[in-house]
Amino acid sequence: MGRVYLDHNATTPLRAEAREAMIAAMDVFGNPSSVHAEGRAAKAVVEKARGQVAAALGAEGADVVFTSSATEAAALFCAGRGFHGAWVEHDAVASWVKPDLPVDAAGRVTVADPGSAVLQLANSETGVLQDLPEGLALSDMTQGFGKLPLAFNWSGATAALISAHKLGGPKGVGALVIRRGTDVAAQLKGGGQEMGRRAGTENVIGIAGFGAAAEAAARDLSDGKWARVAELRDKMEAAISAEAPETVFIGRGSKRLPNTSCFATPGWKGETQVMQMDLAGFAISAGSACSSGKVRASKVLTAMGYGEDVAASAIRVSLGLETTEDDVMRFADTWLAKQKKFHARAA
Amino acid sequence: MGRVYLDHNATTPLRAEAREAMIAAMDVFGNPSSVHAEGRAAKAVVEKARGQVAAALGAEGADVVFTSSATEAAALFCAGRGFHGAWVEHDAVASWVKPDLPVDAAGRVTVADPGSAVLQLANSETGVLQDLPEGLALSDMTQGFGKLPLAFNWSGATAALISAHKLGGPKGVGALVIRRGTDVAAQLKGGGQEMGRRAGTENVIGIAGFGAAAEAAARDLSDGKWARVAELRDKMEAAISAEAPETVFIGRGSKRLPNTSCFATPGWKGETQVMQMDLAGFAISAGSACSSGKVRASKVLTAMGYGEDVAASAIRVSLGLETTEDDVMRFADTWLAKQKKFHARAA
Repeated sequence: MGRVYLDHNATTPLRAEAREAMIAAMDVFGNPSSVHAEGRAAKAVVEKARGQVAAALGAEGADVVFTSSATEAAALFCAGRGFHGAWVEHDAVASWVKPDLPVDAAGRVTVADPGSAVLQLANSETGVLQDLPEGLALSDMTQGFGKLPLAFNWSGATAALISAHKLGGPKGVGALVIRRGTDVAAQLKGGGQEMGRRAGTENVIGIAGFGAAAEAAARDLSDGKWARVAELRDKMEAAISAEAPETVFIGRGSKRLPNTSCFATPGWKGETQVMQMDLAGFAISAGSACSSGKVRASKVLTAMGYGEDVAASAIRVSLGLETTEDDVMRFADTWLAKQKKFHARAA
Repeated sequence: MGRVYLDHNATTPLRAEAREAMIAAMDVFGNPSSVHAEGRAAKAVVEKARGQVAAALGAEGADVVFTSSATEAAALFCAGRGFHGAWVEHDAVASWVKPDLPVDAAGRVTVADPGSAVLQLANSETGVLQDLPEGLALSDMTQGFGKLPLAFNWSGATAALISAHKLGGPKGVGALVIRRGTDVAAQLKGGGQEMGRRAGTENVIGIAGFGAAAEAAARDLSDGKWARVAELRDKMEAAISAEAPETVFIGRGSKRLPNTSCFATPGWKGETQVMQMDLAGFAISAGSACSSGKVRASKVLTAMGYGEDVAASAIRVSLGLETTEDDVMRFADTWLAKQKKFHARAA
């Protein structure tokens, strides 16, 4: 039997549409900044993708500034701005904000002053969704884009972070999306690309992949494909609950992403579970991929009020559009067997 | 007859080796930060490319920090450091330095204190080469890497900027190369990728292309393929000199890149020439691609002491490994015919 990949929030395979667009873009070799025909052809590839991303995000008329990652987009918008945020934000955002917004036990954040606050749309570890207040300075929409019905223009946020590789585009491409007229000072200087917001020759091939992936993701979303994924996720959780009722499910009572499940067996370290399941043929994670390898309690779970026993013992299982019922039930069976062994050893 | 592309310093077509490596990397979908098998496979792609780039650049043992461009690498190393530089540096570097190093009429820069200075290896507009002093803080090697015999470890520089798309890799990938032990503070924060120097999920597909392109470029260089290109460039310049002896060749008496020719017809605007030649089927440039569309005198030429009449009237013709004698002689014929018409109108 092949491996089962259940770590789609870390990254998800390249969509066929993205692959095709990238291979086609490999023949468009001009520099988008060049004024000659070869340059204009490359510029057209970038502009087509910009339109695809804006349409998929419901951001028509907003500025889509392509960056090398949502992380770069976060730095571009947040550095030096002194925004307020919560500990549940991804490190790429949390690094730039005052982490003083309160988080309740369900993972929900209270925003006092939207104009000076950042708030994620969905949490990468728990899948918990937030209601964005009108006038919010910035929302990290990385995990929600492509999985949730969403229109930037109606979200209440002035700016958003998005990433290609979370919805089937390539790694190494993201964007800062901003309402037209919002001020953003370039941090990368030189060539004046991306309307002066971000210098550096554009990642033409990657951007082409982002555009195609965003378009395909929007189509799958409107076709209702994530509803099936949510059913599988719920079946898996029910199977685990039935056999191991002591399992602590995080954020299960909140509105969540359709594909994400986060649960803990107190005392059984998340990193240990990841390694044991990897050897058994299943890819999952403990916390966000970026923090992988650092064995420590999840700051997301800690912010929700969980103690070290739970926060260091949680795993994230995140499904993709290709995940099957067999995949998740095999996962549940294998995990339950290992969990029984853990309890036997611990007893 | 097809178009003739003579703007290889702006960007050059993707090498077959890079294309192949990128398509192969499309199937390696894990996140390099993930600890499971899929993550480790992606990490291996990045590390293989890191080794290829280091070997091609003669930078074994140095740290290769992949970035989204040489522009990003410049910002990462230069921001807030107050380095001294010359006006001949690319805007991506010049934006961060005090431009007070003297430039002579041949385009050569004098460095007083190498430890606080940046100096490019080769100029993108004129092709003029610099001798790098021992202990130089940073060298922009973007235009030299792949075209010149070069070893970072013997160059005298503490750090270097390089870019994939100048040697047949994809656009949107660069690197900061630093002698091990050199301090660099991350500007993109979050996930701690690239040894903590640069956060953000890696551009795995693009990085794979960079590695393969660097390896292929080093092979072509050691096979002597640029010598043929230099001969073609010299033939083209001789043909133009013979018919239009009043043409001002920039940096022709200096050591130059093998592929670059920069020349001016005073009064005939560079941008006009670019557009006329584009319509005639030839892609060339006036100044660097990033500054294209901005009609202004080249600051590189101004720094060399040329007046506005020459500095605003220069074009750059830059050859590639696939350029043929027919290409350059057709270019020379067409350009000479248009130049005669310009003189006739101006008379």
